[in-house]
Amino acid sequence: MSLAICPGSFDPLTLGHLDIISRAANMFDHVVVVVMANSGKNPAFTVQERYAFIQRSVCDLPGVEVDTYDGLLADYCALRDATAVVRGLRVMSDFEYEFQMALTNNSLHAKTETIFLPANREYMFLSSSVVREIARYGRDISTFVPRAIAADIQAKLCGKEIKHECG
Amino acid sequence: MSLAICPGSFDPLTLGHLDIISRAANMFDHVVVVVMANSGKNPAFTVQERYAFIQRSVCDLPGVEVDTYDGLLADYCALRDATAVVRGLRVMSDFEYEFQMALTNNSLHAKTETIFLPANREYMFLSSSVVREIARYGRDISTFVPRAIAADIQAKLCGKEIKHECG
Amino acid sequence: MSLAICPGSFDPLTLGHLDIISRAANMFDHVVVVVMANSGKNPAFTVQERYAFIQRSVCDLPGVEVDTYDGLLADYCALRDATAVVRGLRVMSDFEYEFQMALTNNSLHAKTETIFLPANREYMFLSSSVVREIARYGRDISTFVPRAIAADIQAKLCGKEIKHECG
Amino acid sequence: MSLAICPGSFDPLTLGHLDIISRAANMFDHVVVVVMANSGKNPAFTVQERYAFIQRSVCDLPGVEVDTYDGLLADYCALRDATAVVRGLRVMSDFEYEFQMALTNNSLHAKTETIFLPANREYMFLSSSVVREIARYGRDISTFVPRAIAADIQAKLCGKEIKHECG
Amino acid sequence: MSLAICPGSFDPLTLGHLDIISRAANMFDHVVVVVMANSGKNPAFTVQERYAFIQRSVCDLPGVEVDTYDGLLADYCALRDATAVVRGLRVMSDFEYEFQMALTNNSLHAKTETIFLPANREYMFLSSSVVREIARYGRDISTFVPRAIAADIQAKLCGKEIKHECG
Amino acid sequence: MSLAICPGSFDPLTLGHLDIISRAANMFDHVVVVVMANSGKNPAFTVQERYAFIQRSVCDLPGVEVDTYDGLLADYCALRDATAVVRGLRVMSDFEYEFQMALTNNSLHAKTETIFLPANREYMFLSSSVVREIARYGRDISTFVPRAIAADIQAKLCGKEIKHECG
Repeated sequence: MSLAICPGSFDPLTLGHLDIISRAANMFDHVVVVVMANSGKNPAFTVQERYAFIQRSVCDLPGVEVDTYDGLLADYCALRDATAVVRGLRVMSDFEYEFQMALTNNSLHAKTETIFLPANREYMFLSSSVVREIARYGRDISTFVPRAIAADIQAKLCGKEIKHECG
Repeated sequence: MSLAICPGSFDPLTLGHLDIISRAANMFDHVVVVVMANSGKNPAFTVQERYAFIQRSVCDLPGVEVDTYDGLLADYCALRDATAVVRGLRVMSDFEYEFQMALTNNSLHAKTETIFLPANREYMFLSSSVVREIARYGRDISTFVPRAIAADIQAKLCGKEIKHECG
Repeated sequence: MSLAICPGSFDPLTLGHLDIISRAANMFDHVVVVVMANSGKNPAFTVQERYAFIQRSVCDLPGVEVDTYDGLLADYCALRDATAVVRGLRVMSDFEYEFQMALTNNSLHAKTETIFLPANREYMFLSSSVVREIARYGRDISTFVPRAIAADIQAKLCGKEIKHECG
Repeated sequence: MSLAICPGSFDPLTLGHLDIISRAANMFDHVVVVVMANSGKNPAFTVQERYAFIQRSVCDLPGVEVDTYDGLLADYCALRDATAVVRGLRVMSDFEYEFQMALTNNSLHAKTETIFLPANREYMFLSSSVVREIARYGRDISTFVPRAIAADIQAKLCGKEIKHECG
Repeated sequence: MSLAICPGSFDPLTLGHLDIISRAANMFDHVVVVVMANSGKNPAFTVQERYAFIQRSVCDLPGVEVDTYDGLLADYCALRDATAVVRGLRVMSDFEYEFQMALTNNSLHAKTETIFLPANREYMFLSSSVVREIARYGRDISTFVPRAIAADIQAKLCGKEIKHECG
Repeated sequence: MSLAICPGSFDPLTLGHLDIISRAANMFDHVVVVVMANSGKNPAFTVQERYAFIQRSVCDLPGVEVDTYDGLLADYCALRDATAVVRGLRVMSDFEYEFQMALTNNSLHAKTETIFLPANREYMFLSSSVVREIARYGRDISTFVPRAIAADIQAKLCGKEIKHECG
């Protein structure tokens, strides 16, 4: 059975992430979306919130599981005996960072391959930070994130007082 | 009437910025230089200081106005009914960031185009962060920023005690 | 009056080119699309064919003129006293080539600016060479080039015998 | 059953290609290595020679088939009902070219994904053109291509007279 | 006598750094490895620790000296009357940053050249931040940093309690 | 004694090449500029012409020798027992090509280092192909190539009839 890992900070999940996850699900028997809890990143959402956003967004995708991990990706791959790590590539600067991460990973746990999927053209400009910035100023983000979680993302990022404007 | 927006953090204004602004002024009827007050950036200069530096540097350029804005660029473009956003490009990594910003902007407010001007060869290496680092160590920055504001930038970045050395 | 030049080999015109041309037409009073007749390129279509393809595709765009030129772009800019050269950017490697061309142009005729427009997401993957390859194998290209010229492009690239298959 | 396509010109096959092919074979049930017979490329080896080089090099890899095709990759993917196209990435400029090819492919035949594998560090500098240049000057290429085919590559590229020097 | 400067934050020294230093030592009469004490970087190791790590790692390399400096690189080059600044390049994004630093340096102190050495393939993915992340999670880093300092790096980054696990 | 090789096609020599050569001459005891006679490139000038252009341009630089070679750079480095190969870098796409060439070279002859010098800002846009194109259309190239050889380059590229216009 082939198993793919889709790791990320998912802060928060975007439609671009979801596209990569569902394409991975078409190619592998089982897919684990794992929220990497790297403390240094000062995230906008807690690991639990990010986990829940994904859980609510992938419930219709068969064979997709959500998890969280505080450690090295290579160790998680070994733990799950993964076939592949799947990463989306949007732009060239993604590529270099991802390449280094893949080579590092490979030097720590050679058994798991890293594979890259080119981002869908629709989502090539989309990133979690873009979503956060747009949400913070109260603009509609429902074309950037799964519809089910858009309101909750906006609620948290706009703050209580501004929430009514957001809605 | 064509109106161009030159947005940025301008922390502080460099001769590279000024070159882009004056070239935009040659192509458009009216140019607005707008200091974007994104709180997250931990700037070296306040919005007011940055506004004043630009104001003092563009006073000779006809049709150029200075403004500040705390919000999304797309919203400011809509507010001003802008023809175009003008951005300078120095290096490839600029290009990707700018491309993403342009596509995001376009998805929020399609009416305003983003256009890129290649940086003048003289200013290809110049950035606000380079200026800040050089000024902090008390080296002369008068070939990197408009002459009128060089002393004030250096005064603030070197601190009071070191100021005499800077001068 | 502002005048923009859209130079290229247009071998053949794609919807990506047409998008850049029409966006330039929104920003400038007059736009000249000029087929550069650089002999060295071994083009698939003659200068006359390429000129005619553009002519038929821009006839609805007010203020857009088509021309051909055998010489340096800088000389054509001087001849037309152009405000700007407009180029579309799709990817990073475009950027470097375009940057060098812009700097060369500027060193030969400083009065004309080069400005870059980011390609529309729809056309980010599209190039004349992609169109030629698809057409050569008889696949439908009507979503890649202006509808009016699709059949003629395919007819020439598939050759007489295969033409019926193309249609 | 998952089926991956490894397309290329393979002019000639290198150890870098072989590494990508064997890694694809680990992830997919069946792998087809297909020599694309694009006439325009003026190759050093005929399609038949390139086919034979691969055949002799993959005979130990279970589930790997070799084929040739003269047409669009998208059409071949449709013909084989492929799960994925697998491409190795070495450097950034690979990335852009591959990205455009993947998006084009996707627009012609959406069902087949393109996935990218980062080149093994050992083969990051290796390309068919490097191999050809080294072989042409009679230097040993046995660390760059499968041992079984090294002599035949060198024989053809050095020419009959020089062959003894090559050996 | 030719003198080369190898500046960096070295937070901590990696085998990649050491490779560049020893290659510089082969080309120049004297090499100074200088830890730049830029306060803004929030380093994991103090300047003194980083200095000591390098000192212990280069003691066998003749003609290599270690130093620390709190100031502009250009000023240090002038102070030492350096022939060249030597920097390793791994990836394209290194290149742009390094290029800007080299041009800035040159505009402040034209006498010192900046030269770039391509990273050894073995170390192309290696960076201090990769080392820190791996060490923090208690994984062995002895293939990434000089053997003599591996234990001390791990001790500090894992913290006292976890240290026994690290060992 | 340190010996640097400056290899290239030099078709023809530009001021950018000359800048790299003279900077190499400042750092190394002896510099050999070598015209690589790769037959495949279809050059505008013969090896002898290119050799003569360089000879006439470096006669004032002490310690600089000119040579030609038909073979692999690695073999020439071994022949001359070179300390380093020196290459100028202008843009990112240079970087990747140069990186691959350096790694290939290193795998064939490990003793010679490749070092990169960032192009002078003045020459960042300059290439032999730009010079050839400008010269072909009869525009003055005396700011792009050494003054001593400008007329001869133009004479050959414009052809006899146009020559009087060039002058």
